[in-house]
Amino acid sequence: MEEESSGRKPTIRTVAELAKVSLKTVSRVINNEPSVLPATRARVLQAIAELDYEPDPSARNLRSSSAFVIGLVYDNPNSYHIIGLQNGVLSACRETGFGLQIYPCDSTSPLLAEELAEFVQRSRLAGLVLTAPMSERMDLVEALEARGIRIARIIAAAQDPQDGHPCVYVDDRDAAYEITEHLIQLGHQRIGFLWGSEEHRSSSERYLGYEQALKDYGITLDRHLVVKGDYTFDDGFRGARRLLALREPPTAIFGCNDEIAAGVLAAARSVGMDVPYELSIAGFEDSPFSRQSWPALTTAKQATGDIARYAARMLIASLRNDGENAIAQQNHGFAPQLVVRGSTGPVRLRPNPRQES
Amino acid sequence: MEEESSGRKPTIRTVAELAKVSLKTVSRVINNEPSVLPATRARVLQAIAELDYEPDPSARNLRSSSAFVIGLVYDNPNSYHIIGLQNGVLSACRETGFGLQIYPCDSTSPLLAEELAEFVQRSRLAGLVLTAPMSERMDLVEALEARGIRIARIIAAAQDPQDGHPCVYVDDRDAAYEITEHLIQLGHQRIGFLWGSEEHRSSSERYLGYEQALKDYGITLDRHLVVKGDYTFDDGFRGARRLLALREPPTAIFGCNDEIAAGVLAAARSVGMDVPYELSIAGFEDSPFSRQSWPALTTAKQATGDIARYAARMLIASLRNDGENAIAQQNHGFAPQLVVRGSTGPVRLRPNPRQES
Repeated sequence: MEEESSGRKPTIRTVAELAKVSLKTVSRVINNEPSVLPATRARVLQAIAELDYEPDPSARNLRSSSAFVIGLVYDNPNSYHIIGLQNGVLSACRETGFGLQIYPCDSTSPLLAEELAEFVQRSRLAGLVLTAPMSERMDLVEALEARGIRIARIIAAAQDPQDGHPCVYVDDRDAAYEITEHLIQLGHQRIGFLWGSEEHRSSSERYLGYEQALKDYGITLDRHLVVKGDYTFDDGFRGARRLLALREPPTAIFGCNDEIAAGVLAAARSVGMDVPYELSIAGFEDSPFSRQSWPALTTAKQATGDIARYAARMLIASLRNDGENAIAQQNHGFAPQLVVRGSTGPVRLRPNPRQES
Repeated sequence: MEEESSGRKPTIRTVAELAKVSLKTVSRVINNEPSVLPATRARVLQAIAELDYEPDPSARNLRSSSAFVIGLVYDNPNSYHIIGLQNGVLSACRETGFGLQIYPCDSTSPLLAEELAEFVQRSRLAGLVLTAPMSERMDLVEALEARGIRIARIIAAAQDPQDGHPCVYVDDRDAAYEITEHLIQLGHQRIGFLWGSEEHRSSSERYLGYEQALKDYGITLDRHLVVKGDYTFDDGFRGARRLLALREPPTAIFGCNDEIAAGVLAAARSVGMDVPYELSIAGFEDSPFSRQSWPALTTAKQATGDIARYAARMLIASLRNDGENAIAQQNHGFAPQLVVRGSTGPVRLRPNPRQES
C-alpha cells in the first residue's frame, strides 16, 4: 500500500520512480530543456499526469520562494535596446528566482528621485537597475542611495569612474574611434556625425571617439558635418537630408546608433543615392535593425543583453550580501566591437572636372 | 508659530500656499505635466525644496498605496510588438497605481500552467494579462482560472468567442481580407502568402482572410504560393526567396506581419528587384519597421498599445470588483485597418514574348 502513496503529496522522486528515469531527467523535462529524448519526455509527462504532481519551486532552479523583485528603470526611445536590456536583466532574475518590474520614466521629471523612491516602496522592490541617462545623473544616484535604495548602474564611460557607486561601464568612445578609423581607412575625409540625445553620456563619448580619430589622422573637423539630434530614425533621416544638401556633402555618415543610421539609409535612398557606392553609413549597437536593412549596417556590437545581465547580477549579489561573490565587489567594463557590413565601402572620388572631355 | 508648522509634515496644501498657486498647479508640477509656465514651475519647485516636501502617492494620480501588481505574459519574437504590449499595459497600470511584472515564457513548455501559477504566487500578483499563443490555449486558460488566477486575454478572433473567459479580440481575418482585396484591385492575381507561427491564431485568421478574398474574386488558390514559417524577418527572407524562385513567381507577397514583410523586402532587393514595380509587398501590424523601410510598407494598423491597455483595464476593473465599471463586464473587439504605403502598386504585366522582336 505504501507504494500507492495515497494521500501523500507526490515528489519529484515519486515521478522519477514511476517513469523509471533519474531525478535529473525529471528536472530537465520540468524545465523544458532540449536534451531529453521524446519518448523519455513523454514517459515523464505521463507520470506527472498520473500522480497529479505539482513541481516544487526548487525543482525549477528557483533558489528562493520569497517574492524578491527588482526594478528596471529606463527612458529610451529605442525598442530593440529596451528589449535587449530587459532580456539581460530577466536572465539574471531567472537564475536567482527574482521577479522583474519595469519602470519607464521621464528622465526630465523634476521629482524623479521621489518618484523612484515611491515606486520602490510601493512595490517593495529589493533594488533598481538604473540605465542611462538616469544612471549618469549623480544627483539622482546619490538621492536614491541616501534613501537606502540599492542600485546598479549601466553607464557610458571610457574607464571605471571609481566614484563609489556600483556600475557596469561601456567604452563607447573607443568603439566610436574604431568606426571612424574604419571609415578613414576606406579613404573618407568628409565624415558626417549625427548625435544621439545629449542627455545620454553615450552620445558625447561617441562624439569624443569620432573627434579623436579625425585628429589622430590629421583630418580637420568641419563643424558643418556635425548635427545634433535624438536617438531616433526620424532624427537620422532629417540630419542626413541636411548633410546631403551641403555644398560639399560628406562621403560617409556615422550615426550615433543604428536607428539613426537606418534613418540615414532611408534619406540616402529617398534622394536616389546608392549605398555604399555614393555614401557609406555606419551605426552603433548591432541591433536587429542593423542586420535587417539592405545593405546591412556597419556598426559596433554592443552586447546590451550581457551588459544588463551583468548589472542585474551585481545588484542581486549585493542584495544577498554574498561576500564570496566577487561580482558585487567590483565595477565591470564592456568594450563594443566594430562589425563591418555592406553599408560602408571605399570612397568613390568624384571625377576631376578637368579630366572630363 | 503655527505658520512655520515646525515638526509638521508639509502637505501639498502647504506647498501651494508658499508658492501662491492652486493645488492643481502643484499637482501638475509634481506629475510633470506640460501646461505650467516655467516661472510658476520654478516657484513650485522652490517651495517643495524649502519645505522638504515629499509628494504623497495620492498627489500623483496613484489611487492606492498598496503593492498591487499584475503580470504580462508573452512569448513573441517581435520586439516592437512586445514594447507595444508593455506600453499599453503600463499605461493602464499607471492610471490605477498598479505595478507591472513582465514574464516572457516558452509557450511550448509542458508545465506552463504550473509555472505561471508559481509566478503568480511567488510574486503575489493580482492577475495576469495573457497574450497569444498562451491566451488561445483553452486548457491553459482553464487551468489558471481553476487555480483562482484572474486573467484577461488578448486573442485573435473574427468575433466575440463568448466562451465565458474575459478577452479582447482582434479581427485579423477581416483586415487580412482587406489587404488581399487591395492587392487584387491593383491587378495582382498571383499573390504569395507567408504564414507566421501556426501556434498563434492570428496566423490562421490572416490566412482565412486571404483565402476568402481570393475566393470572392474568383482567383484559384495556388498552394505553391503559400509558405509556412514563423513571425520573423529571417522566415520572411527565406519564404520570399523560395517564392521568387518559382517558375511562375508571384507579383505580390503578403507577409503575415511587418517583420516577415521586411524580410521579403530584403529578399527582393537581394535579387535586384524593384519594389513595388516588380513586386508588391504587404505586411501586418503597422510597426515602426513598416514606416521606416524604403519604400514604406503597406500594412494593417493594429493598435497594439490600445489593445493591451484595454485588456489591462478589464483585468484591473475585475480585480477591483467595480460593478459600475462596464469595462470588466464585456469582451471588446478591435479591427485593424488597411494602411496603403509605397510597397504596393499596380501589377506590371510581363511583355508577351510574341510581341518581342
